[in-house]
Amino acid sequence: MITVVPESGFNMFQVNAGVILMYSIFKYQELKEFCEKIFSCYGFSAEDSYTITDVLLRSDLWGIESHGMQRMIRYHREITSGMVSVAAVPEIVCETPVSAVIDADKSIGQTVGVRAMRAAIEKAKTCGVGMVSVRNSNHYGIAGYYADMAVREDLIGISMTNSEAIAVPLFGRHAMLGTNPIAVGFPADPVNFMYDASTSVVTRGKVEVFNKLEKPLPEGWAVDAKGHVTHDAAEVLHNIINKLGGGITPLGGAGEMYGGHKGYGFAILVDIFSAVLSSGMTSNYVAAKPGENNIAHYFMAIDYGVFGDKTSIKAHLSRFLRELRESPKSEGQPRIYTHGEKEVESTAEKLEKGIPVVDRTQEEVRKIAEYHNVPYTLTGEPREH
Amino acid sequence: MITVVPESGFNMFQVNAGVILMYSIFKYQELKEFCEKIFSCYGFSAEDSYTITDVLLRSDLWGIESHGMQRMIRYHREITSGMVSVAAVPEIVCETPVSAVIDADKSIGQTVGVRAMRAAIEKAKTCGVGMVSVRNSNHYGIAGYYADMAVREDLIGISMTNSEAIAVPLFGRHAMLGTNPIAVGFPADPVNFMYDASTSVVTRGKVEVFNKLEKPLPEGWAVDAKGHVTHDAAEVLHNIINKLGGGITPLGGAGEMYGGHKGYGFAILVDIFSAVLSSGMTSNYVAAKPGENNIAHYFMAIDYGVFGDKTSIKAHLSRFLRELRESPKSEGQPRIYTHGEKEVESTAEKLEKGIPVVDRTQEEVRKIAEYHNVPYTLTGEPREH
Repeated sequence: MITVVPESGFNMFQVNAGVILMYSIFKYQELKEFCEKIFSCYGFSAEDSYTITDVLLRSDLWGIESHGMQRMIRYHREITSGMVSVAAVPEIVCETPVSAVIDADKSIGQTVGVRAMRAAIEKAKTCGVGMVSVRNSNHYGIAGYYADMAVREDLIGISMTNSEAIAVPLFGRHAMLGTNPIAVGFPADPVNFMYDASTSVVTRGKVEVFNKLEKPLPEGWAVDAKGHVTHDAAEVLHNIINKLGGGITPLGGAGEMYGGHKGYGFAILVDIFSAVLSSGMTSNYVAAKPGENNIAHYFMAIDYGVFGDKTSIKAHLSRFLRELRESPKSEGQPRIYTHGEKEVESTAEKLEKGIPVVDRTQEEVRKIAEYHNVPYTLTGEPREH
Repeated sequence: MITVVPESGFNMFQVNAGVILMYSIFKYQELKEFCEKIFSCYGFSAEDSYTITDVLLRSDLWGIESHGMQRMIRYHREITSGMVSVAAVPEIVCETPVSAVIDADKSIGQTVGVRAMRAAIEKAKTCGVGMVSVRNSNHYGIAGYYADMAVREDLIGISMTNSEAIAVPLFGRHAMLGTNPIAVGFPADPVNFMYDASTSVVTRGKVEVFNKLEKPLPEGWAVDAKGHVTHDAAEVLHNIINKLGGGITPLGGAGEMYGGHKGYGFAILVDIFSAVLSSGMTSNYVAAKPGENNIAHYFMAIDYGVFGDKTSIKAHLSRFLRELRESPKSEGQPRIYTHGEKEVESTAEKLEKGIPVVDRTQEEVRKIAEYHNVPYTLTGEPREH
């Protein structure tokens, strides 16, 4: 039996046959109250504890378990080691009516992220557009959460973040770029458009799953320490962790045959908008010093009303998305999705049936509760997958 | 001997062995004067003839021959058939200090494109950011030309365009999306950053080259009429031309293994910013009616000075790009590029040594000159490749 706990950007229930997951199902409200309590124990205000928990559990609701409950242990380590500063006072270091730069002061990413996107939203409501770049921050969870904040205000929302370098430049053998996700949301009926994906071909989590399954990596997902394409997941992870060279390839893979120069370019763009505009650290310096993540984010909101009648524009997009979904399917494919549908359906299902949390994560969370002398009160319903 | 004339997004001198190209080398100035004369013969003003020629020849200078001289015949057909209106009067139909929507009135893409980007630049200089969405236009050449206009004004430049649908949605078998390129430029030393690429895995031109070489298409570049991955370039082109189903896959290829959902999402984003915001036609309606292209574009300029000291920000990006270029290369790879370098080097070479034009294109251009009763005065130096 192999228990798989993927670490980022991967739906653990999409894992191939051969894996048994031991997990339990928990009620959303129960997890929410528990996590808020834990975060308040670190010294976060009630509002901040709510925010961190909301971002965290939104990931689980959307079906991105990698960024949900299983990240608790990482945040615990980063908070207790001082990498994340609970007492951080993020400061606006530069501001115009359409823009701002925030120095996060080592804040946890979620709270400064929400504050930065709120600022972008206010600017968009006043000027039509708002752009906020943030430096000196930490992991902020799923990029889509912040884009969605703008969408809920009937605006276009954009969010991106750099991250620790695990991806190689095209023709390179040294990890210089993070998985650098981009999220863009736009209001639509019946489901908002919500694009949220890394600019690397895959995330580290997928390589970890292949490692645990002892399956060879698909051609072009990663390169070894010499820069040659490798199928050896264990070697890739070992090299990444020990910074021995090699890494994951950009979207489009190794070489130019499938457009590796495109994913490489998108990853650079994420660093430009997050780290360069904020005068922060680019991916190749993220988490490079002990005790500092130095992650940078970018947030943008656009009031699409500056382009015409909002009802009509929204209807136009809704029709286009419907036409895509209703276009002829490939033989054997039951459905064409547009981005955001899976998240909405996953949320409805998990609010009704509960959120799955694997046993290993439960064990980690139990230890965190012990650390705070908080009774571990979570009672899930055990399952096997 | 196979003579290859790729049609878009492809450097013909990157073609594999087995192809002989018959071409001649022409001086830039000679081509420029000739093209300006031809465009003025259609009735374009001297300024517009300059603009169209400048966009066209910039493609050749940058090494993107597919969008250069060889497009003359296409523009000739579209202008003489009335698809492109020489007398078009593009109109601003919606405007705010940070935004505008332009109805191009069937203008040739280059002239309305330059006008739209100039408007975005003016808005960026006043407000920090300018966004202009354009509908009812025609092909505008390379997206990077417009992004570069902003870069030359020390701004961030963004440009994108939709195009006739030849790409399928993820899990679809009906072409619903164009190659939908995105260009983003940012000033840097010694070479500006200039990303310019389609959001499909490849462009039609590459499939055409494989067809002429009678080589099987790489796995995942295209799907057949039933939506299955195919290696048959001739079939794919036949299906695209006759709208029989199938088409090119999004960046990331067929399925989700290599991130096909990501390229699919980026293609939708291009349609959102160009066609949805301008209330124009999305890719699936482009060139769908006889005599109308109905292409939509998007232009954006950002004064990065709204994020801090421009000298310092530009130096920051320049350093990051240098670090990428100077990072360790994969074994056997002589160089890591950053986006924009190839274009600058190609331009210097072609301004010095001349611009290659294949024999078939020369023949087409000679016929266009005849059509206008303009003496065909181009004298190139014949070569073989």
